[in-house]
Amino acid sequence: MSISVFEHPFLSGFMGDAEIASLFSADADVAAMLRFETELAKAEAECGIFPVETANAIVTHLAGFVPDMAALSDGMARDGVVVPEFVRQLRRKVGDAASDKVHFGATSQDVIDTSLVLRLKAATGILMERLAVLTAGLGALSKRDGNLTLMGYTRMQAAIAITAGDRISSWKEPLERHHARLAAFSKSGFALQFGDAAGTLEKLADKGPAVRAALAARLDLADQPQWHSQRDGLAEFAALLSLISGCLGKLGQDIALLAQVGSEIRLSGGGGSSAMPHKQNPVTAELLVTLARFNAVQLSAMHQSLVHEQERSGAAWMLEWMILPQMVIATGAALSTARRLIGQIERLGSEKD
Amino acid sequence: MSISVFEHPFLSGFMGDAEIASLFSADADVAAMLRFETELAKAEAECGIFPVETANAIVTHLAGFVPDMAALSDGMARDGVVVPEFVRQLRRKVGDAASDKVHFGATSQDVIDTSLVLRLKAATGILMERLAVLTAGLGALSKRDGNLTLMGYTRMQAAIAITAGDRISSWKEPLERHHARLAAFSKSGFALQFGDAAGTLEKLADKGPAVRAALAARLDLADQPQWHSQRDGLAEFAALLSLISGCLGKLGQDIALLAQVGSEIRLSGGGGSSAMPHKQNPVTAELLVTLARFNAVQLSAMHQSLVHEQERSGAAWMLEWMILPQMVIATGAALSTARRLIGQIERLGSEKD
Amino acid sequence: MSISVFEHPFLSGFMGDAEIASLFSADADVAAMLRFETELAKAEAECGIFPVETANAIVTHLAGFVPDMAALSDGMARDGVVVPEFVRQLRRKVGDAASDKVHFGATSQDVIDTSLVLRLKAATGILMERLAVLTAGLGALSKRDGNLTLMGYTRMQAAIAITAGDRISSWKEPLERHHARLAAFSKSGFALQFGDAAGTLEKLADKGPAVRAALAARLDLADQPQWHSQRDGLAEFAALLSLISGCLGKLGQDIALLAQVGSEIRLSGGGGSSAMPHKQNPVTAELLVTLARFNAVQLSAMHQSLVHEQERSGAAWMLEWMILPQMVIATGAALSTARRLIGQIERLGSEKD
Amino acid sequence: MSISVFEHPFLSGFMGDAEIASLFSADADVAAMLRFETELAKAEAECGIFPVETANAIVTHLAGFVPDMAALSDGMARDGVVVPEFVRQLRRKVGDAASDKVHFGATSQDVIDTSLVLRLKAATGILMERLAVLTAGLGALSKRDGNLTLMGYTRMQAAIAITAGDRISSWKEPLERHHARLAAFSKSGFALQFGDAAGTLEKLADKGPAVRAALAARLDLADQPQWHSQRDGLAEFAALLSLISGCLGKLGQDIALLAQVGSEIRLSGGGGSSAMPHKQNPVTAELLVTLARFNAVQLSAMHQSLVHEQERSGAAWMLEWMILPQMVIATGAALSTARRLIGQIERLGSEKD
Repeated sequence: MSISVFEHPFLSGFMGDAEIASLFSADADVAAMLRFETELAKAEAECGIFPVETANAIVTHLAGFVPDMAALSDGMARDGVVVPEFVRQLRRKVGDAASDKVHFGATSQDVIDTSLVLRLKAATGILMERLAVLTAGLGALSKRDGNLTLMGYTRMQAAIAITAGDRISSWKEPLERHHARLAAFSKSGFALQFGDAAGTLEKLADKGPAVRAALAARLDLADQPQWHSQRDGLAEFAALLSLISGCLGKLGQDIALLAQVGSEIRLSGGGGSSAMPHKQNPVTAELLVTLARFNAVQLSAMHQSLVHEQERSGAAWMLEWMILPQMVIATGAALSTARRLIGQIERLGSEKD
Repeated sequence: MSISVFEHPFLSGFMGDAEIASLFSADADVAAMLRFETELAKAEAECGIFPVETANAIVTHLAGFVPDMAALSDGMARDGVVVPEFVRQLRRKVGDAASDKVHFGATSQDVIDTSLVLRLKAATGILMERLAVLTAGLGALSKRDGNLTLMGYTRMQAAIAITAGDRISSWKEPLERHHARLAAFSKSGFALQFGDAAGTLEKLADKGPAVRAALAARLDLADQPQWHSQRDGLAEFAALLSLISGCLGKLGQDIALLAQVGSEIRLSGGGGSSAMPHKQNPVTAELLVTLARFNAVQLSAMHQSLVHEQERSGAAWMLEWMILPQMVIATGAALSTARRLIGQIERLGSEKD
Repeated sequence: MSISVFEHPFLSGFMGDAEIASLFSADADVAAMLRFETELAKAEAECGIFPVETANAIVTHLAGFVPDMAALSDGMARDGVVVPEFVRQLRRKVGDAASDKVHFGATSQDVIDTSLVLRLKAATGILMERLAVLTAGLGALSKRDGNLTLMGYTRMQAAIAITAGDRISSWKEPLERHHARLAAFSKSGFALQFGDAAGTLEKLADKGPAVRAALAARLDLADQPQWHSQRDGLAEFAALLSLISGCLGKLGQDIALLAQVGSEIRLSGGGGSSAMPHKQNPVTAELLVTLARFNAVQLSAMHQSLVHEQERSGAAWMLEWMILPQMVIATGAALSTARRLIGQIERLGSEKD
Repeated sequence: MSISVFEHPFLSGFMGDAEIASLFSADADVAAMLRFETELAKAEAECGIFPVETANAIVTHLAGFVPDMAALSDGMARDGVVVPEFVRQLRRKVGDAASDKVHFGATSQDVIDTSLVLRLKAATGILMERLAVLTAGLGALSKRDGNLTLMGYTRMQAAIAITAGDRISSWKEPLERHHARLAAFSKSGFALQFGDAAGTLEKLADKGPAVRAALAARLDLADQPQWHSQRDGLAEFAALLSLISGCLGKLGQDIALLAQVGSEIRLSGGGGSSAMPHKQNPVTAELLVTLARFNAVQLSAMHQSLVHEQERSGAAWMLEWMILPQMVIATGAALSTARRLIGQIERLGSEKD
């Protein structure tokens, strides 16, 4: 029992996902926020907002910047958002000459939302790779065992015989669609957030769109008008995550049910028991069900956050902070766990019908 | 207070959506199930499963079929699914010569899921039209009032002045994306379900895919392999619904907040009070928030249903029956309500700053 | 597929609960609202707010009142709440002499919330009776089969032998606690709502508390200060409902799993299939799982509604209207379904180990 | 953005609760599990299961036990539960003479559930203290400002004047009820879990109940039959948490709305902005709304977990691990935040009407 199973000393090895978790650490956040600020300086110089020398000074001084985390925490506690203190630290590091050009024309939400999007994009790349690997693994399983007979069950009752390949298709086809969904989303779904105080880029006057385009290009994000109070992209992304974990939950439930009856599957590994050393519990299969139900619940919060009032809702925004990273990691963990589970299947189906 | 506000004698006029609700009545369901069965007969005859005369007999005898609803209810109570009794009634109507060819090669889930998809497709057409109308309405509003000044608010505090047009954009842009999302989904998202007992179309042998293609064409649905235990399409569709109502919830919340302060909006209509006849409550704005939060909650159930075990999970399937029609109607109601609300705006913004 | 399975011509016989549903019909709502208004008149006369003759006139004229439902619907659509039009109809019926004393000192929320509480209280009585009957049924089952051997399963794997009685206890003990929870809640949980426009009973001056006490006594409800913006009682009640259906969901899932393996349970009845007439689907067991997951989702909405801003939140209030009646009926249906399922168990456990 | 805002280097200072979080650390879990095992040994010796010397040896050897966390993590990854490896480490530490009596008659779930309950009980003590402090703070606020005039708002519109005291009552009364609810729950809600492999305490034969009673007394927990598959107590507790945070969400929303209009409240502190240094954002008020909506969502998962199949559902159990600690901390954070917010109110209401 811990606050987050994803960061827990002994639970996270089973339930977590270190690779994706690293994208949502405070360090990764700070690095992405810093990248936003330095690329912003370059983009603004590029568009003639200030001299290139100013941008160079900013970039040079911020190379190797290490935040004062305790002061960030104090700033967060004071302001309810970390960026004012973060920018203060950056400006102190940059020094007098250029400090007023750090974060010029931007606001807290620009930094935080863009940092998030940069990391969601990186996470999506990993998820897509894992989907491909898992799909291939299921393809190989189907090649090996697909012609074996499996009892088809409808409404928890034996119906008619199908093949292992039929069942494997019900696991594999959704994964192929999920890959296509993530690919489609990636085309324009990861967009720079840049709007300043109330979305109007008022400090940049008529150069706002040009700076935004330049910054988006530098960050390799889609260039779109500010979306600070339009959270449909994030809510849509969250739904894609839950689709993935949900379909893997079906896989897990199916294998747990097969393991209960026992005759139609042979699994290696399996969790031990403190009371009954002989048992082999299908713990990876169970975990898939857990992660599916977890994300199905969390998704509701991301959709509650669509009611994002006015130009910036602190209440709705902070709810996203509490939910979305956990959903991404749960999805990553589900993919890793499914791959591990598929690898444990020594035989699926009966050799003879 | 009633069981469903969408069917309630006096609540549904305000909170419901008669046009979309009609798609989810028992009559509409029966009509769509009947259409499935008659088109199936034609498709099977077309593919040589049985003579065209048999199909003609089925179609002829079932013209004007009126179900015995009481018997359907008894059948449902007995079987947990209405189709066995429904098919029994159809076969009785068709008579001896062709009765065994009614529903040939199909199973309950084929009928029910396809009936659902036919009606979701029809509902989607309506939703898309309404999105277009609402977007146009917001465009007209922006044309009229877009240059008026509006105070921008961030984190519930006055920030800097923006224009009414800026705020309207935050309502309108997501709706344009929702229209595009529904269009993209429609390309292949409304697919025939046809698989028989356990998904293998075993009674049709090698003609299964041909019958499926013919039936899909006749029903104007996408032709895809059976998806009886793959519910990602429905869960994805539900998320699109919640995106729509969620973004309209933001619109409602924004207008309720404007109405509370009062100086920057002038609304006609507005709900009366039994204790204070002078009050003008922004009840349509409130309703949008209600519907947004409603769908955000329901969405969780549709994603729980992704854990659809084996070849058919009665538990997960019936949960969809309880949730999805309500979500579609809530979304339709949100669109109608938003249109009404937009029409009530006599002025948005201040004439001078 | 219908809007609400609880009111559907052929689904409700299996999934619904006619007895509890009748408490949440529009007619039942109107009757309870009428009762509020007539008892209010009597209580106010009793406390000297106006002469007893006035109250008598109101009561006499409203005997047999039949609302104009179409006008109620129009009023609802106009005002977002039905009470202004409802009171208008009552006053018209009462006539000039006493019409201004109808609804005197009350507001819409007083009428609607009290009508709800009256009916929740009636429903709770039914639920408690059913809990007692079901507990007795499980006791009888335990008496009959309790000593039979049953394989204990942990983490979906056979563990060690237990008895049927052990398993039955895991179903029965929570039901006994639920009964005690409802009894404890009933002591003060069903309270009159009476506060007028903003909770201060300002029109009754110093006689407010006395009228409230008299009205509560007449309605057999707890007398408590107005709670119009304090929704914790309703949210707590909703959680009790979900506890009941959730524990019955465990019962359903257990029996579905027993039925899948088959050797340790013998069930009568069971749902038929349109494709495989020989199958006996444990559809009542599945339905219990469905209803459990349904209520677990809905509960989230009732807790979202706790954020009930200021003196009356239309948005949060209407969300309760959409959710709570469905939860009560789902709970009632779960109890009836569980009783039916228990009656279908011809044997639980193995005769010999 | 981080995985859990409650453990985040700079977010947790604002959004978290260090005191309660410490109860859900891995160290606290290990300490509570160790306490279970040593008190179990004493209880079993007390009941004559083995000599007192054996219990003494166990206690002596385990004094100062420090787990090998890396090995716990490996064990968790292998078994899906940490206890087998944990017990292995304990047995190694105890050595040959008594090692087979460590964990005698217990199973993984006994250790983990009891460790959880011990810490929930400790957390509840803290929550109750904070409720009392907050209630007192609201009482003092009412004493100071209660007679000031406040505009009452219904459905987002000014209704009639009330007093600040009226509004404060709507915040304070639910908190008093929550305190009473937690007190009532505490009487029997924190119960020892002790049942062994499948709940039957089979290794202890007829001494099972005596050992359970002795162990419960030593741990200061209620003595109840094993509840390993009966999760209603935990789901009920989770609902109490959400009631608390939900009502505080109303407080937060009310104050955010007051702060928006501005004239009726004077707040000190308030969060700064990176773009507009003059702004004072009511970030603590917003955070209360966030935490309310967070818990309202999480509660759904705890109720999904009621469907806890057979003698132990790994899937449902692990879902609790992911959810409940976060809910407790969110509730604690809401109470601390509300106290801070109340302290920021320099004036509530208008000095004159």
